[in-house]
Amino acid sequence: MKPGDHYGIHRSIEPPNTLPQPAWRIDPSLPIYDNELLLDVTTLNIDAASFQQIKREVGGTKEAVATRILQIVHERGKMHNPVTGSGGMLIGKIRQWGERFPHSELQIGQEVATLVSLSLTPLSIHQIHDICMETGQVEVEGEAILFASGIFAPIPQELPRRVALAVLDVCGAPGQIAKLVQPEQRVVILGAGGKSGVLSLFQARKQLGNTGQLLALEYSAEACDWLRQLHIADEVIQVDATQPVEVLKQVEAATAGELADLVINCVSMPHTEMAAILSTRQGGITYFFSMATSFTAAALGAEGVGKDIQMVIGNGYTAGHVQAAFEAIWEHPQIAAWFYQRYAGISIEAEKERME
Amino acid sequence: MKPGDHYGIHRSIEPPNTLPQPAWRIDPSLPIYDNELLLDVTTLNIDAASFQQIKREVGGTKEAVATRILQIVHERGKMHNPVTGSGGMLIGKIRQWGERFPHSELQIGQEVATLVSLSLTPLSIHQIHDICMETGQVEVEGEAILFASGIFAPIPQELPRRVALAVLDVCGAPGQIAKLVQPEQRVVILGAGGKSGVLSLFQARKQLGNTGQLLALEYSAEACDWLRQLHIADEVIQVDATQPVEVLKQVEAATAGELADLVINCVSMPHTEMAAILSTRQGGITYFFSMATSFTAAALGAEGVGKDIQMVIGNGYTAGHVQAAFEAIWEHPQIAAWFYQRYAGISIEAEKERME
Repeated sequence: MKPGDHYGIHRSIEPPNTLPQPAWRIDPSLPIYDNELLLDVTTLNIDAASFQQIKREVGGTKEAVATRILQIVHERGKMHNPVTGSGGMLIGKIRQWGERFPHSELQIGQEVATLVSLSLTPLSIHQIHDICMETGQVEVEGEAILFASGIFAPIPQELPRRVALAVLDVCGAPGQIAKLVQPEQRVVILGAGGKSGVLSLFQARKQLGNTGQLLALEYSAEACDWLRQLHIADEVIQVDATQPVEVLKQVEAATAGELADLVINCVSMPHTEMAAILSTRQGGITYFFSMATSFTAAALGAEGVGKDIQMVIGNGYTAGHVQAAFEAIWEHPQIAAWFYQRYAGISIEAEKERME
Repeated sequence: MKPGDHYGIHRSIEPPNTLPQPAWRIDPSLPIYDNELLLDVTTLNIDAASFQQIKREVGGTKEAVATRILQIVHERGKMHNPVTGSGGMLIGKIRQWGERFPHSELQIGQEVATLVSLSLTPLSIHQIHDICMETGQVEVEGEAILFASGIFAPIPQELPRRVALAVLDVCGAPGQIAKLVQPEQRVVILGAGGKSGVLSLFQARKQLGNTGQLLALEYSAEACDWLRQLHIADEVIQVDATQPVEVLKQVEAATAGELADLVINCVSMPHTEMAAILSTRQGGITYFFSMATSFTAAALGAEGVGKDIQMVIGNGYTAGHVQAAFEAIWEHPQIAAWFYQRYAGISIEAEKERME
């Protein structure tokens, strides 16, 4: 096998000698290089923005969407939507790996999900079997290649695949929190009712134990009711995160004016930077997990109110993040039931009966 | 005096009960509240993007620009450009403060610069004396109000005002570095030849002493020559920060493959996130000071290459940042001379003779 570059630069064709993500076209051909992993792909999970754009562009029939997907992958060597710039992730079974691929405990035939974007993953598709027009999951026969720098996770066989995918999609947040939250801290989760929010809430409580203070802030009244039933947060507060003054008042009231040592922003709406910044005490940390975060709004906003805080860009990857994300599913039946209902459309009891 | 809100919410008129920065209109009228500072304004330093936009809009004569500035301030109660959304800073002399204004050692008549944006600073202008059409500095007679949360710095009387403004404009970067850099670390400054870059470089060397390794990366050949003459960096490398693979190769070569513990990105161009991320070792820290940073490019970029690093949004404010920024000017004659030449258009020798 030929020696490959750690980041997959050896596969970039147009232009050569660049990273595979910004490259227009990459080479998905076999054989693999000495530090690569080869997967037999079974499912593409196309990013929502990309899938909606393709449906609009080609008119919404399954056949037309399939043709467009095949065309993109043929042209670019990867499922990298040229309009949205986004990708998605995939599920496949391990077929082969090079001797320099930096992972041990691999098994041929093991089902894994890639945790790097499809926009940089070399891909060949031989056939599309079916497309779920609601979720953007595409059943295919094909091959994909993971670079030495690529990350992936085994799919837990006990879970419906859609539940596993929903968890893996946001696993960065609970993974970071597992390292970040210390006992005795005051922690605020903004947007606690979404999937990254609830996984973050669970993980923060694990770290705090019975110490500190954990506040769950959420816009939807319905989600607030549900969060209260979980008995994880010390207080659940219904508030609009785009209203920083209102959020500040609520957090001040709940913390006796001390504010939070750590604020985790999981709100997927724009314009929530100031709510997070104002809720953080001087010297505290604000973590932004939402892709709707504006860098300049955060940087200039903190300066504008004289806040000497550390503002961190939520990294989708940290060592051990997959395990941390699934802990909520294994350990908290109500959270598991919510994921089953919302992402697989089934009750957890029905699924258990089916499995037995 | 009436009690004021810490963040100045009491001055927001349209809409009320919001932060003064997002408010369309704020109230700059006197008297001041009990936690405010009143300044007699002498100079507005209008943000470059805002000033260029106004010149284009009204046609470029001094009179037309003055009229537009007066109109904006009259309409909004602040010099908050409605097109660009940006502001700038101002210089004024302290006239009065409320008993709850949280600063001591104030002197009436002392000349200070505000370090919060004009886009949130209550301002009245009685007269415009002159406008420098190149730099956007506007000589005025007027009043401005600083909130309890607002930050400001005395103008060192030993420096030409333009040099002081240039330093104050970027003082967040060296201030953060003074707290961040530890002896023995490997530190990379990306964009070391600009004003925030060179102040960061100087401060990083102070922290490192003779330990660790300090690399200055810079695009311009001329700036690289000058940086080498400063004898601050262990190595000055000419490289284009929009080319991540090339930057990675250079940093790998210079660090014997170890990469940097800390990368400070001061490049004001877009698309330099990956160069900073790839140059950072696993477990290291990447600091983004450029306003051209894309949040999503950083967040998805690190995940895409499996980098478990902490990525920090450069906060323009940290306690003690003003002192840290001026240290380079007081302590390094060549850096001081560069600031004099570039921002005041004079040689430091000529200025010294004039002062004597």
